Amino acid sequence: MVRGSWIKPGAVVIDCGINPDPQKSKKLLGDVAYAEASAVASHVTPVPGGVGPMTVAMLMRNTVLAAKRQFDRLLAPAWPLRPLRLTPLTPPPSDIAIARSQKPKDIAELADEIGLFPNEVSQYGRTKAKIALSVLDRLKDQKEGKYIVVAGITPTPLGEGKSTTLLGLVQALGAHRGRNSFACMRQPSQGPTFGVKGGAAGGGYSQVIPMEEFNLHLTGDIHAVTAANNLLAAQMDARIFHELTQKDGPLYDRLVPRIKGVRKFSAIQLRRLKRLGISKTDPDSLTDEEKTKFARLDIDPTKVMWNRVVDLNDRYLRKITIGQSPTEKGFTRETAFDISVASEIMAILALGTDVEDIKERLASMVVALDKRGNPVTADDLGMTGALLVLLKDAFEPTLMQSLEGTPVLVHTGPFANIAHGCSSILADKIAMKLAGENGYVATEAGFGSDIGMEKFFDIKCRASGSRPHCAVIVATVRALKMHGGGPPVTPGAPLHDVYVKENLELLSKGLCNLGKHISNGNKFGVPVVIAINRHGNDTEAELNLVKDFAEKNGAYRAVICNHWAKGGEGALDLADAVIAACEAPSKFDYLYPLDLPILDKVKKIAMEMYGAGHVEYTEEVLEKIMMFTEKGYDKFPICMAKTSNSLTGDPAIKGAPSGFTLKVNGIFVSVGAGFVVPMVGEISKMPGLPTRPSIYDIDLNTTTGEIEGLF
Amino acid sequence: MVRGSWIKPGAVVIDCGINPDPQKSKKLLGDVAYAEASAVASHVTPVPGGVGPMTVAMLMRNTVLAAKRQFDRLLAPAWPLRPLRLTPLTPPPSDIAIARSQKPKDIAELADEIGLFPNEVSQYGRTKAKIALSVLDRLKDQKEGKYIVVAGITPTPLGEGKSTTLLGLVQALGAHRGRNSFACMRQPSQGPTFGVKGGAAGGGYSQVIPMEEFNLHLTGDIHAVTAANNLLAAQMDARIFHELTQKDGPLYDRLVPRIKGVRKFSAIQLRRLKRLGISKTDPDSLTDEEKTKFARLDIDPTKVMWNRVVDLNDRYLRKITIGQSPTEKGFTRETAFDISVASEIMAILALGTDVEDIKERLASMVVALDKRGNPVTADDLGMTGALLVLLKDAFEPTLMQSLEGTPVLVHTGPFANIAHGCSSILADKIAMKLAGENGYVATEAGFGSDIGMEKFFDIKCRASGSRPHCAVIVATVRALKMHGGGPPVTPGAPLHDVYVKENLELLSKGLCNLGKHISNGNKFGVPVVIAINRHGNDTEAELNLVKDFAEKNGAYRAVICNHWAKGGEGALDLADAVIAACEAPSKFDYLYPLDLPILDKVKKIAMEMYGAGHVEYTEEVLEKIMMFTEKGYDKFPICMAKTSNSLTGDPAIKGAPSGFTLKVNGIFVSVGAGFVVPMVGEISKMPGLPTRPSIYDIDLNTTTGEIEGLF
Repeated sequence: MVRGSWIKPGAVVIDCGINPDPQKSKKLLGDVAYAEASAVASHVTPVPGGVGPMTVAMLMRNTVLAAKRQFDRLLAPAWPLRPLRLTPLTPPPSDIAIARSQKPKDIAELADEIGLFPNEVSQYGRTKAKIALSVLDRLKDQKEGKYIVVAGITPTPLGEGKSTTLLGLVQALGAHRGRNSFACMRQPSQGPTFGVKGGAAGGGYSQVIPMEEFNLHLTGDIHAVTAANNLLAAQMDARIFHELTQKDGPLYDRLVPRIKGVRKFSAIQLRRLKRLGISKTDPDSLTDEEKTKFARLDIDPTKVMWNRVVDLNDRYLRKITIGQSPTEKGFTRETAFDISVASEIMAILALGTDVEDIKERLASMVVALDKRGNPVTADDLGMTGALLVLLKDAFEPTLMQSLEGTPVLVHTGPFANIAHGCSSILADKIAMKLAGENGYVATEAGFGSDIGMEKFFDIKCRASGSRPHCAVIVATVRALKMHGGGPPVTPGAPLHDVYVKENLELLSKGLCNLGKHISNGNKFGVPVVIAINRHGNDTEAELNLVKDFAEKNGAYRAVICNHWAKGGEGALDLADAVIAACEAPSKFDYLYPLDLPILDKVKKIAMEMYGAGHVEYTEEVLEKIMMFTEKGYDKFPICMAKTSNSLTGDPAIKGAPSGFTLKVNGIFVSVGAGFVVPMVGEISKMPGLPTRPSIYDIDLNTTTGEIEGLF
Repeated sequence: MVRGSWIKPGAVVIDCGINPDPQKSKKLLGDVAYAEASAVASHVTPVPGGVGPMTVAMLMRNTVLAAKRQFDRLLAPAWPLRPLRLTPLTPPPSDIAIARSQKPKDIAELADEIGLFPNEVSQYGRTKAKIALSVLDRLKDQKEGKYIVVAGITPTPLGEGKSTTLLGLVQALGAHRGRNSFACMRQPSQGPTFGVKGGAAGGGYSQVIPMEEFNLHLTGDIHAVTAANNLLAAQMDARIFHELTQKDGPLYDRLVPRIKGVRKFSAIQLRRLKRLGISKTDPDSLTDEEKTKFARLDIDPTKVMWNRVVDLNDRYLRKITIGQSPTEKGFTRETAFDISVASEIMAILALGTDVEDIKERLASMVVALDKRGNPVTADDLGMTGALLVLLKDAFEPTLMQSLEGTPVLVHTGPFANIAHGCSSILADKIAMKLAGENGYVATEAGFGSDIGMEKFFDIKCRASGSRPHCAVIVATVRALKMHGGGPPVTPGAPLHDVYVKENLELLSKGLCNLGKHISNGNKFGVPVVIAINRHGNDTEAELNLVKDFAEKNGAYRAVICNHWAKGGEGALDLADAVIAACEAPSKFDYLYPLDLPILDKVKKIAMEMYGAGHVEYTEEVLEKIMMFTEKGYDKFPICMAKTSNSLTGDPAIKGAPSGFTLKVNGIFVSVGAGFVVPMVGEISKMPGLPTRPSIYDIDLNTTTGEIEGLF
């Protein structure tokens, strides 16, 4: 008997991990009874080879147990979650010291608490686990939880604490208010981790733990994206080379070889034939012209749009020449490496709604134009299946936990600079199903409301069809003072006095920035809650000034939060405000319909989100927009690539200016991800390492196994 | 109380996963009894914050249980291993069909069977688990099992089945002869997986499963090596750039910044100071000259020896120019990407005997020469800690299983072309401890005895101090016919008639190659067992001819094996021969002592292993050897980079020629790995993709989740 082959994947059976030994069963039952029971069993489960009676008995018992457990769950008002207690110190020690002081729950325990079945959970060590997408199937009739996006005002270069607030909020909801609550976060790139100090796991008493697992390889998803992206590049360049060095006949014969006398197209080659309008399936029956059409992709080496990637800050790879070995016979070309999270594949993983959708998006990625200007896709290069195989584990979100033991799903991390910068739709969907009707799912949008939140609503929510219930916008006194005219804030340098002492005047002047972000949220028809993230130097007068302004200027509610210093307990008001906001009527709608022309969509975003008066384009950009429109790419949403440090295109301009001109000096399209990317100014896709990167502080204590200096 | 912080890592406590709730304990005991018990408990475990009495009780109970379990284990003659039964079909279906037909045991079950404690096992899903190095500490007094190396004769390009024989052997030993037995294998590179068809998981009924997990990302170790290798490259180029664009003063100030008023060297900077002979620790106390000496590595961009890597076949990266973006101000240079497994870091992971040893080796890797010709190391670039942190999970071997449910440790995969091509010392050590005195550990050496086995003995065994008990050399009738003058064997092309029909004459002529490999094994003083790996077309007369020849020409024993078709049952004779050989007296010794000059060591290998009469060197190589000798690198063992397809340096020459001249036309040193690499002929460090790579056949069935066409 072929063991286990009859067990359907995802069936309850696997849950129980049973595999009874016939010899033991015979011992238990006696030979005659065993034979009789066997005969009955083979009627119950008529599969080739037969199934033992003990197996059937155990299957039936387990089916009953699983059903009962599921039923109990559905009746319970909330998860039986065991929060991890916090005893915050004053002043809080370093992030890593706080993270280390908490022993995380075994991730299997957390998975069980939130209603996952063992067969849906693949542990990666004791603190991380991949969650199977089959949970969406199992819970397809389950009502979904409330959906909350956390965005920010225009930040200082130090960041205003979006991740910290996200975690404080779910810790408050989950560990203190007894609500099912999830944080959905992006996996951070390893580049910045080793570049300029600063993890992405939150901070103080609002963190995801263990932070070193979160900030390093995690469960390997970014590495899988890197491998997939680069295999596609290698296959493209190899194909260009093989086409340049082979005549039509031999090229076709190599692409469709005779193996043990049989010659046939592979499935992916048949798809290409179909696209070419050739319906033949016998490789020998093609005409010479058809053979050439099939075999020659005819990629124009000057029109390649696909770069290689690495997940680190490597400035010397920003522009390179490849193919200089004599083995490549002089066919060199200029290209670049981007940071891995900038790969279109990462954006696709984040936007795909199921595996089929991801497959279609990967297949349709345009990697180059051919010499007649037609797009060449990943599928034309035969790559779709290989990409899927490399990415299969990366489809699944990774479960981790907050400092207070509430669940966190980490999944994908598309570069906010040139993609939409949100974690995955699949993770959010799983979280909303597991949280259930009375639960809450909070997720982060990269950067301020003008960039991150706008893309969250217009790109991510459009792709998923999910309707958000509330937007939380994180504000700090420090950033608002900067918008009021305070001197520049520079990482590493000491803060100027105006940021350390009370200064209501400067703060008042900067409130305009907050006002703009509130109005941005309201334009989408969702209640906006302002989370004022308290810092040590803020005075009560300052904090209350911000709160009053926000509530008088369109915020559903504004609350002062202290989750950095206190954990969930410091975000109870925020939690209550979010609970109330999620009950308020939401009239969510997108900013623009997809059938507007590209120019009109960009204009709408520029004027309504940024406050621009006009949009200017270069000649080249306008030509490309015409080309995109001809090819039907104008029906995609817009993914602006603009600085996040200003509402305008110039990072130096603070506050909330209006009537300015936004200059679009570049544009490209990500056909697989499904968006058009207008570029405002220079947007780097590859950061560099400074003279003294955080590398110098990082070490592994070889005695304790603990990482030092990483954060 | 800070939860869990008092639990020492690796203590038995963690095994039990206990964390009793004081509230529950009070309920159980009553308040007064709880208080009294608490007082006692705090005497037993005097830690700050105190420990509850239930905790202490459970700790004590678990300590007793663990001790009992450990004791029972030590008395048992063998593991309580549950083999997975095989029912081989004739003819055997495809490798993937066979692999799929077997349901692997849950890896936690296997880990338990072989005596691992739960706290030593980190599951990665249900079929893979990382094994903690702490097991070596726990079992330090345990006697070790027998150590067997599996190598081959000079192969055809199709391979002669070394991995298959390795797995057949351990399946026979473990599942049929009831002996504790481990296979230790290399993790394969993903490059060949997507290039020319062929996994590395064995074949037929002798495989490691699941083969798709084995052949793809596994537990991410190669990705970690890639990340570490490339971070080092990025840091080196960034440092060259920053030194070129900054004056001495600002450069020093940036390397040793004042943070919140405090200026200090990091630990790794203090190490560099020490190497420079500067004993000061206050950054402000250095003289200008000392500051310059510290801050300027002065790397000569034409003397860089560190390449970037990717784990795929990307021929266009064999030679490239980097730094062409205007942001790098014209400081371009030529370099290359190698395949990841060729990284020196991979060789170090394979050769390190503990974490401290790995740390020292990583620190001492030479990445370039400075303008005065002195070596610049990874430690000079501040990288040692960051490398360790990126690699920390990759230190641990991955446990998988054979088709018959016996344990397999997969760890590291240094490129056999330019490194030593063996899996890790750490995995072998763990396996030998777990197998115990009566157990067997078989590991594979890349290529034939001239290359793979020689390096296994002279490099790997020298680094580990382990003494091998037996060498298994795999031979096939097919390869021996080729050595007898048969026409070339080409992958993809049909086999010539002489390989399909009985041909005793050709076979007789080719036996010389087998004779040479037997004599090579005997030179190291270990018994040599010849495994004749039966193929479908071999006749009894042919197989017996090989067997007789081997036994008359120095083999301890020669056996005909059929494990490809039958699994362990087909390798019972091999298992018995190995058991006997391991009882035979072994007079193992290295081929050469380390203190011989480089030229003499190379000569000894060339003459005794290959049969060469002379060795010739280019002028440049001789100069480099002088330089290596000056720097003390002449005390390293030799790691020859020579074709594996011939005993000579020319892949076209078959049989066992003697008296030929071996031409060494290149040489380099891997200071961290600790070997000198003479190059014979062109050795590529970056394969390419053919016109039709296996990419075209690979797909993911989005309904079943199964991978198709990968093997």
